Amino acid sequence: MSTDRLSVTFAALADPTRRAILAHLALGEASVSELAKPFEMSLPAISKHLKVLERAGLIVRSREAQWRRCQLKAESLKNAADWIEQYRQFWEQNLDRLDDYLHELQTQEKQDDRQQ
Amino acid sequence: MSTDRLSVTFAALADPTRRAILAHLALGEASVSELAKPFEMSLPAISKHLKVLERAGLIVRSREAQWRRCQLKAESLKNAADWIEQYRQFWEQNLDRLDDYLHELQTQEKQDDRQQ
Repeated sequence: MSTDRLSVTFAALADPTRRAILAHLALGEASVSELAKPFEMSLPAISKHLKVLERAGLIVRSREAQWRRCQLKAESLKNAADWIEQYRQFWEQNLDRLDDYLHELQTQEKQDDRQQ
Repeated sequence: MSTDRLSVTFAALADPTRRAILAHLALGEASVSELAKPFEMSLPAISKHLKVLERAGLIVRSREAQWRRCQLKAESLKNAADWIEQYRQFWEQNLDRLDDYLHELQTQEKQDDRQQ
């Protein structure tokens, strides 16, 4: 496993439980037990996921009194988005080509209708 | 390792060599040996990375004669971008807050200047 920053972020995102935790934290900060609730997972299992997210810079955990609140941190997500964004032209080209193809099909159908 | 589509895509992106291969293919299709050149890696090592990218739907490999050309496929990247995009408001809010803070500092400095 590579340890460069972007790789660590993408690796952290490569798990549906961790993405669900981020989705939860997008609604506001939460405690570990609040985060564990929807998953029917043990607290240690959730803690392991939180450690991965924290190492990737995707969340921060604060220690206030006996609470450990977790909070979403967006900078790593922005870096991942920026990297993917470079490729936007490729999927937009693909969709343009699909558009052209559908348009061609429709024109062809109209011509066929007229000829019948 | 989870096998849902988005997780497989993020896991494939979690490696600098694989991201560099995608960057190369963004310039146009290429053969395996062309892709291997800049990395000083063996062909089997590169092939392993290509298999990961193919399984993630990030590239397609065609077999024409004895050539195996690789091509970028953007749909999985678009899905990854769409997922991250939900969180855009978070990094934009963070940047807004930074903007506010810098603006506040400037205002404070101007007031200090006037008072001197």
